[in-house]
Amino acid sequence: MSKLYWEDLAIGQVLEYGAHTVTREEVIEFAREFDPQPFHVDDEAAAQSPYGGLIASGWQTAGFCMRMLVDNVLSKARSLGAPGVEWLRWRQPVRPGDELRVRHHVLEKRVSKSRPYVGFVKNRFEVLNQHDAVVMEMVTQSMFQRRLDPDHERGAA
Amino acid sequence: MSKLYWEDLAIGQVLEYGAHTVTREEVIEFAREFDPQPFHVDDEAAAQSPYGGLIASGWQTAGFCMRMLVDNVLSKARSLGAPGVEWLRWRQPVRPGDELRVRHHVLEKRVSKSRPYVGFVKNRFEVLNQHDAVVMEMVTQSMFQRRLDPDHERGAA
Repeated sequence: MSKLYWEDLAIGQVLEYGAHTVTREEVIEFAREFDPQPFHVDDEAAAQSPYGGLIASGWQTAGFCMRMLVDNVLSKARSLGAPGVEWLRWRQPVRPGDELRVRHHVLEKRVSKSRPYVGFVKNRFEVLNQHDAVVMEMVTQSMFQRRLDPDHERGAA
Repeated sequence: MSKLYWEDLAIGQVLEYGAHTVTREEVIEFAREFDPQPFHVDDEAAAQSPYGGLIASGWQTAGFCMRMLVDNVLSKARSLGAPGVEWLRWRQPVRPGDELRVRHHVLEKRVSKSRPYVGFVKNRFEVLNQHDAVVMEMVTQSMFQRRLDPDHERGAA
C-alpha cells in the first residue's frame, strides 16, 4: 500500500479539499456535549445574541477541519499525530447550511532531533465557507514518519 | 439573576474545576466523527502505534476542557465567545479511564477599543489527569460583557 511520508510533502505546497455542509442538528448536538453556551444550543437565545442566530462552537469548526484533513491527507499518510497548535483564529461565525472546505498550506519542514524517523511539518489551514470567507485559520505542527527507517514501520499505525 | 461580568475576573486568579472521566466509547465516537485516525478509533491499530493504545483526539480533549469551562464559569458569566487560541499543546496522551480536570489562570485583561461594552480576558488552561500530569495546555482570549452598559444587556445572550 502506497502511503504519503514526510518526504512527500513539499514546502509551499497548497492542498484544497472538502466539503462539509453544516447542519443545525450537528451544531446543537456537538454543543450540548462540549460547549453548551446559549448561542450554540438555543435558536431563540442565539437570535438575541450578538451573533444574531445559531452558530457552531469554534471547537466543532476545528473538528470539521480535522475530519477533512484526515479524509483527504492523513488517511493516506504515515501520520504520527500532532504536538499542538501554534495559533488559531475563529474569524467568522459558522452557521447551519454553511458549506465548508479547507485550504492547506505546507509552510515548513524539519526532522526531529531526538527521533530521526519522525519529521515535523508546519501547516496553515484556512477553513472557507461557500462565500469564500475564511471562517477559521490556524497554524499547526504535525508529525509524519520519514521514509528512511523500516524499523519504525510499526510506528505508522 | 446574578452573573459574572468582565469586572469580576481578576488578573492572577486561579480557578480549579472539573472532573470528567474519559470513556472508551466517547473516544471512539468522537474520533469516528472528527478524527478517524487508527490510534483514535481502533484498539488493535492503536496498540501497534507509538501511543501503545487508544488515545483521545486532541480536539476532544479541548472539547472536554471547554465543557468544564462552560459548566463552571461561562454558564454563570456574561460570555460573548472567543476570537481564538494563542497557542495549544497536547503534552500527554489522554486515554480511556483518565479523569481530567482544569486549572484556569486569568493572565491579562483589557477593554475592547471598538466595543467598550466588551472586555477581553487572556486565560491559560491546564488540563490535568488523575496523576496530576498536564495533558493539554493552552492560552486563549475570551470576551465578556462589561458591567457598565445596560444598553447591551441583550448582547449577553
